Amino acid sequence: MKTYYNVEMLPKEKVFRDPVHGYIHIQHQVVLDLVNTKEFQRLRRIKQLGTSSFTFHGAEHSRFNHSLGVYEIARRICDKFVRNYPTVEPGDGLWDDNERLVTLCAALLHDLGHGPFSHTFEKIFGTDHEDLTIQIITSPDTEINQVLREVGLDFPNQVAAVIAKTYPNPQVVQMISSQIDADRMDYLLRDAYYSGVTYGTFDLTRILRVIRPAEKGIIFENSGMHAVEDYIVSRYQMYMQVYFHPVSRGMEMVLYHLMKRAKDIYQNDLQEFHHNATFLEPFFNNTWELKDYLRLDDGVLTTYFSHWLDDSDPTLSDLAGRFLHRAPFKSVRFDREKDWPTIQAMQSLMEEMGYNPNYYMSTNNSFDLPYDLYRPHKAGSKTQIEFMEKNGTIVELSQASSIVSALTGKMRGDERLYFPREITHGFSEEGINLFDNLAEQFKSYIENDEIITE
Amino acid sequence: MKTYYNVEMLPKEKVFRDPVHGYIHIQHQVVLDLVNTKEFQRLRRIKQLGTSSFTFHGAEHSRFNHSLGVYEIARRICDKFVRNYPTVEPGDGLWDDNERLVTLCAALLHDLGHGPFSHTFEKIFGTDHEDLTIQIITSPDTEINQVLREVGLDFPNQVAAVIAKTYPNPQVVQMISSQIDADRMDYLLRDAYYSGVTYGTFDLTRILRVIRPAEKGIIFENSGMHAVEDYIVSRYQMYMQVYFHPVSRGMEMVLYHLMKRAKDIYQNDLQEFHHNATFLEPFFNNTWELKDYLRLDDGVLTTYFSHWLDDSDPTLSDLAGRFLHRAPFKSVRFDREKDWPTIQAMQSLMEEMGYNPNYYMSTNNSFDLPYDLYRPHKAGSKTQIEFMEKNGTIVELSQASSIVSALTGKMRGDERLYFPREITHGFSEEGINLFDNLAEQFKSYIENDEIITE
Amino acid sequence: MKTYYNVEMLPKEKVFRDPVHGYIHIQHQVVLDLVNTKEFQRLRRIKQLGTSSFTFHGAEHSRFNHSLGVYEIARRICDKFVRNYPTVEPGDGLWDDNERLVTLCAALLHDLGHGPFSHTFEKIFGTDHEDLTIQIITSPDTEINQVLREVGLDFPNQVAAVIAKTYPNPQVVQMISSQIDADRMDYLLRDAYYSGVTYGTFDLTRILRVIRPAEKGIIFENSGMHAVEDYIVSRYQMYMQVYFHPVSRGMEMVLYHLMKRAKDIYQNDLQEFHHNATFLEPFFNNTWELKDYLRLDDGVLTTYFSHWLDDSDPTLSDLAGRFLHRAPFKSVRFDREKDWPTIQAMQSLMEEMGYNPNYYMSTNNSFDLPYDLYRPHKAGSKTQIEFMEKNGTIVELSQASSIVSALTGKMRGDERLYFPREITHGFSEEGINLFDNLAEQFKSYIENDEIITE
Amino acid sequence: MKTYYNVEMLPKEKVFRDPVHGYIHIQHQVVLDLVNTKEFQRLRRIKQLGTSSFTFHGAEHSRFNHSLGVYEIARRICDKFVRNYPTVEPGDGLWDDNERLVTLCAALLHDLGHGPFSHTFEKIFGTDHEDLTIQIITSPDTEINQVLREVGLDFPNQVAAVIAKTYPNPQVVQMISSQIDADRMDYLLRDAYYSGVTYGTFDLTRILRVIRPAEKGIIFENSGMHAVEDYIVSRYQMYMQVYFHPVSRGMEMVLYHLMKRAKDIYQNDLQEFHHNATFLEPFFNNTWELKDYLRLDDGVLTTYFSHWLDDSDPTLSDLAGRFLHRAPFKSVRFDREKDWPTIQAMQSLMEEMGYNPNYYMSTNNSFDLPYDLYRPHKAGSKTQIEFMEKNGTIVELSQASSIVSALTGKMRGDERLYFPREITHGFSEEGINLFDNLAEQFKSYIENDEIITE
Repeated sequence: MKTYYNVEMLPKEKVFRDPVHGYIHIQHQVVLDLVNTKEFQRLRRIKQLGTSSFTFHGAEHSRFNHSLGVYEIARRICDKFVRNYPTVEPGDGLWDDNERLVTLCAALLHDLGHGPFSHTFEKIFGTDHEDLTIQIITSPDTEINQVLREVGLDFPNQVAAVIAKTYPNPQVVQMISSQIDADRMDYLLRDAYYSGVTYGTFDLTRILRVIRPAEKGIIFENSGMHAVEDYIVSRYQMYMQVYFHPVSRGMEMVLYHLMKRAKDIYQNDLQEFHHNATFLEPFFNNTWELKDYLRLDDGVLTTYFSHWLDDSDPTLSDLAGRFLHRAPFKSVRFDREKDWPTIQAMQSLMEEMGYNPNYYMSTNNSFDLPYDLYRPHKAGSKTQIEFMEKNGTIVELSQASSIVSALTGKMRGDERLYFPREITHGFSEEGINLFDNLAEQFKSYIENDEIITE
Repeated sequence: MKTYYNVEMLPKEKVFRDPVHGYIHIQHQVVLDLVNTKEFQRLRRIKQLGTSSFTFHGAEHSRFNHSLGVYEIARRICDKFVRNYPTVEPGDGLWDDNERLVTLCAALLHDLGHGPFSHTFEKIFGTDHEDLTIQIITSPDTEINQVLREVGLDFPNQVAAVIAKTYPNPQVVQMISSQIDADRMDYLLRDAYYSGVTYGTFDLTRILRVIRPAEKGIIFENSGMHAVEDYIVSRYQMYMQVYFHPVSRGMEMVLYHLMKRAKDIYQNDLQEFHHNATFLEPFFNNTWELKDYLRLDDGVLTTYFSHWLDDSDPTLSDLAGRFLHRAPFKSVRFDREKDWPTIQAMQSLMEEMGYNPNYYMSTNNSFDLPYDLYRPHKAGSKTQIEFMEKNGTIVELSQASSIVSALTGKMRGDERLYFPREITHGFSEEGINLFDNLAEQFKSYIENDEIITE
Repeated sequence: MKTYYNVEMLPKEKVFRDPVHGYIHIQHQVVLDLVNTKEFQRLRRIKQLGTSSFTFHGAEHSRFNHSLGVYEIARRICDKFVRNYPTVEPGDGLWDDNERLVTLCAALLHDLGHGPFSHTFEKIFGTDHEDLTIQIITSPDTEINQVLREVGLDFPNQVAAVIAKTYPNPQVVQMISSQIDADRMDYLLRDAYYSGVTYGTFDLTRILRVIRPAEKGIIFENSGMHAVEDYIVSRYQMYMQVYFHPVSRGMEMVLYHLMKRAKDIYQNDLQEFHHNATFLEPFFNNTWELKDYLRLDDGVLTTYFSHWLDDSDPTLSDLAGRFLHRAPFKSVRFDREKDWPTIQAMQSLMEEMGYNPNYYMSTNNSFDLPYDLYRPHKAGSKTQIEFMEKNGTIVELSQASSIVSALTGKMRGDERLYFPREITHGFSEEGINLFDNLAEQFKSYIENDEIITE
Repeated sequence: MKTYYNVEMLPKEKVFRDPVHGYIHIQHQVVLDLVNTKEFQRLRRIKQLGTSSFTFHGAEHSRFNHSLGVYEIARRICDKFVRNYPTVEPGDGLWDDNERLVTLCAALLHDLGHGPFSHTFEKIFGTDHEDLTIQIITSPDTEINQVLREVGLDFPNQVAAVIAKTYPNPQVVQMISSQIDADRMDYLLRDAYYSGVTYGTFDLTRILRVIRPAEKGIIFENSGMHAVEDYIVSRYQMYMQVYFHPVSRGMEMVLYHLMKRAKDIYQNDLQEFHHNATFLEPFFNNTWELKDYLRLDDGVLTTYFSHWLDDSDPTLSDLAGRFLHRAPFKSVRFDREKDWPTIQAMQSLMEEMGYNPNYYMSTNNSFDLPYDLYRPHKAGSKTQIEFMEKNGTIVELSQASSIVSALTGKMRGDERLYFPREITHGFSEEGINLFDNLAEQFKSYIENDEIITE
């Protein structure tokens, strides 16, 4: 039996001014206490978009910023639900406001396990931000867990279950993670606002008017079809134009090689790092625990990189400089099936020019599935987006929208080859280029920013 | 003789998407090269508003972001000037577009000498960001200087002269620093955009229509009086509501005490810090050079703070935690003349409660002069804002606007006493408070967030 | 005893998309029915800003548009009040939500009595829009009255009392008309949005957070002082820059003379108009009744003007053309005390040039009082704006804000002389100007758009 | 030989404040003179969106407003073209700025021939707004023509040729009318701004960066593909959600029947109208000339409608009331092939209820083709949208975008049956409904707002 419905409310609502939603409204003591934990405050020091701010200089906002936004959207949805669709009896597919607190907490905390440049960090050290989010919520050592336990001993587990998508009420789960959830709605709007692009803008107020609870989760009123369609297009546009921007990925490639080099050096020679990467050592050693992870943030990494500028290893210091002073790897599109031999030829040329391809060349593919149907026999299948007509008929989104239909089930993105910019863009200031022939040969494989294989 | 007018233009203008100005337009190779220097890229790692993002979570933007904006406004003013007011002969008070490049470079670089949390840092270590900006521009060791020298050997000095306000052309100087300059116009709009407040919004496009060059600098057409008046009000509102927010200053007070404690410890016992504050040591030792300063950024400081959480000095680790986990000192307004004895009484109470007032109590005054007349016999007097009527008559702003007149020459702000929040907001979770009486006595000196002295 | 608290609610809230407030939310059947009356729909055909759209082409919005906005702001205030300050017992200065419906209806209907170009129309025909609003509400012949009576027989009188400011509850009265009411807040934001100026923008959401009921009406929390101050400055800026724009007033002067000429002709010779001004005749005859007034709208007037283009009276057709084809009278500022003899000289010159000054020359003064204190011994004194501090102390706005203090109790605006533009701007295309000497003499009295008297 | 390149420029640019583009910049005397003609000023009295403001109350803007916007976009494109792609020799596919003036005039004047509620008016009276635009430009009697002739005797014909798409330079023609032209770009942004929906928002500044001249007209740089794609989606969304809104069409149906009834009565009995529709008579008589057309505007029609409220013909006065007091016909979707017999049955029921179906029932289909390829063998084929890659390759839009591909060549919209709302929404206030059975039978044919035919 749930007991947290009547948890302590603040005597007076607190608000945080927010550029995307106007205000974030905090109404429960427990939510305020969660915001004030050290694990949540740490999100201030982790950028929401990783290396994207190297391309879109405006997009320097943190995961703290975004997390408050997700909370606020979830709160507004709960408000709509309890006003328009309050449950009458269990199983009626309407909204039970006893679910509000677990929903709000899960919304607020869903990104808690993110670390600095998560995407790249996870590749090097095998961490998993979703798993870490759950650990932070359930581990008795965290302040987050201590606050949640004040609601009820099992409450941390319930919040964690929402994030793990094992929570029994599908309305709660889908509000936090589905193809149209509070998380995505916030990040599209927020990332668009901060980067200054307009593609991510869709009509949130309209969507909040047509969203409603249903037996199997969240659905939408028929009249909101075009607003949801527009959201899918915005999502697609943000992926194509912002998240997958080749220059941001070029910085990610530098970062990847830098951390890989550091790890490689460390694992061969402990001495190299002893006073310059204290908080990273447990990761190099693969002995890290949750508390080590919680020490990391963007500033910790860049501080270490700054130390490494003076390192005696030329590859490490070179890559550290490329990252800190923004020298992204350049890229060209390619087709894995057709162009692989060409890439191998290019790699040989790079070696001849003196680059170690392990640290100076890589492929990167970035693909996203803008929308998909529920596919019952497929692992990891997504909950599809559905509309309810006046007489109760249910229609799936791609049936109603030919635009969405064109995007359904198809991965969007591209695969690119990354290498140092100077190879194709001219060399040192002295104007001397010993590798002219090699570079010219390298460039001859490229046309229209694409690898050409004859 | 100036030779840089025909410096290399980019074959095709480059643009950076900007949420405030739409796009930043880069048209000269030298400007692009300056952006790509390591000294300029470092500004990405320094927040524009220091501790303000602890109050306005949206305001996490960097000085890099702002510097591009100042450049862009200066560029737009030059465009207006050359189109509408091109000089015909020297001394005609019109615009000589040979001044464009020095103006753009000064606009771009004017904040280069800022470090992490400059305001507080300068108080502890005696650095001076304006002086450092000039050093970075003129020191032959920086990449900035090397790029500028490509324009002409004396060019770095000219750019520096603009920032030092010794450059002969007052139009250039005033465009970069005066009571209504590209710097202020950008930061008001930008800080408003990022924090989500609307107070800082004024009509930049209107101001750009009415601004014009004059013999003694920059003036405005008469028809733009209300737009300029609105700018002054926006400036005043941003200071009152955002820049002087008591909670941000409460974080600044924590930071100040934290760094002071670190310095005090260091200067008494070198060992304490040897592996946890490498880049700060030259400052503790007072042996720092420009290159040391350029190593610092927000992340370096917070990384050291994070290390200090485990320090054996309880004051240091306590203050580091208050900063990293956002526990600002609380404050009350006071009147220095009237309330000083009361403050001393409060200080004694704090000592009785076990706090060292040197690190846990301080006063902070934040005052700004929204606008002032030119006062010929006063040191540091400001260039006043003036309008030109149809027949050439000049009118000073506060003569034309009674609103501005009400703000002219009067400092605005307040003075506050800061102390740990827990003293007035209840204590430990155990519910036991040994200092109850002391705290009650302390609180009895406060009413309506103000110290009362009878 | 009030019985309307439980009036019929719509089974599902209806919303109208609104560019200023996002959505207008209609929740009561009676409000929807009022919107659908013919008297309310007529407001679609009356522009909110009269001749201002001749200067700000974007500002073509109607009083219908604005009236919905006032309703919506009032609705949001009621929502805040009932959530945060619900009354416990009569006379406690808190909000009794039984007042909601009368408030919403008064907000919606407050401008019902406006006619086409009210300001000018009233001068010519002696109508009074506030009085007419009350008549429309209380006259048994209107659909408005019939809808209101369904709430209760006395309900129309109560709504009318709010508008007449005789309603007993000062909270209700002040929400609709005071120095900071739903009406003004909507029109400032709306007129700014439609005209494209930014001066009218203030922070409505912040004001809605700090507004609260009090025993004597509406007050504000202390923390909202700067938001209210900003609202007063916005109001002042809109008056100075938009509402009092000399060119809009130049069109108003044309309109005034056109209608005056029509009335003068009519009252001397009935035949002249019999088929071209049917709906205006009762006004020319001074026999009009409410039903006649309700026939008028902007289109009716301009249609008649278009007919008059062909009229045999040259003054009438000339003025009609100036209005329809936008040829505003030009204006210069003057000082009544000093410049009167000069104006008389200018008038003589105009007569010599062949203009009848009765229809081609006039003075116009436009003044506004941005804010005033309550002045107990003065007729028509305004309710002042007040703040409540934490401990209950009340502070009046101009005491708290020096900006507002500078505007308090002082009329702002100017007085101008209007005359046909061609007198000072050159004549016919043939290049021949028989009045050259006269015009030159006329122009010699003007400098810097001001009359000069020696 | 063109001579108008050096036509008179204004000594100082004039600007009109515009909410969508910030400012409209007027730089040529001839453009200013065109704006001041009576034919152009008349556009102030004609709403841009006809009956749409009955659904979106904010969208009350005029064709005057929009025409200035189209001019401004065209002006900005010319600025980009002359800066980045100035022609070197004839036929090089670059921009010849001698084309600027004809482009600007065509942009400004392209909607000049629109009358009140054009769409409906044209159906009743057989007028054609495009043909009328050309007449106004080329007829020697208009002020427009007189102004244009001052540029050159053939200049009016050249401007008309652009509008007729017979002008030799395809760049000019496509800038004014093609699938992505200044007209559409302005109305999408403007209609979205005024209605308050966000669907119409696309990134104009980005499109202005990537647009370029080409030999066969206008093309785009490859890098702008997603911006153009977003524009197509915005266009599609605006049609689906705003322009084709069933309620606006319900008002159009009322208007259509009202004017049809008036015409039918008039053509049978001249006396009926002689003092109430003067300006419409030439249209009833089918004897109208251009000067008659130029007398019409929205206000003229609604004034006549208001007169007709008192007409002795009950159908005429009823329909006039429905229009003036906003009582749109209600609608249901249907499928022409399947549902025709059902519609006939419904029509019979309406007759039994006493409605004359000629004036109270109609079908309306609204379809739009969001985008199409160039189809060489098809009449009226459109110029397709194309992109240029780095190496000069041309790619057609639907090849590059699968979203656009999904919309290409497919008509979007629906067909609806319209009838008086009261039939399905309950009857008179007396609560008595003699037709209950008939109405119930009528309603039985409808489900989910669609006609069902079994």
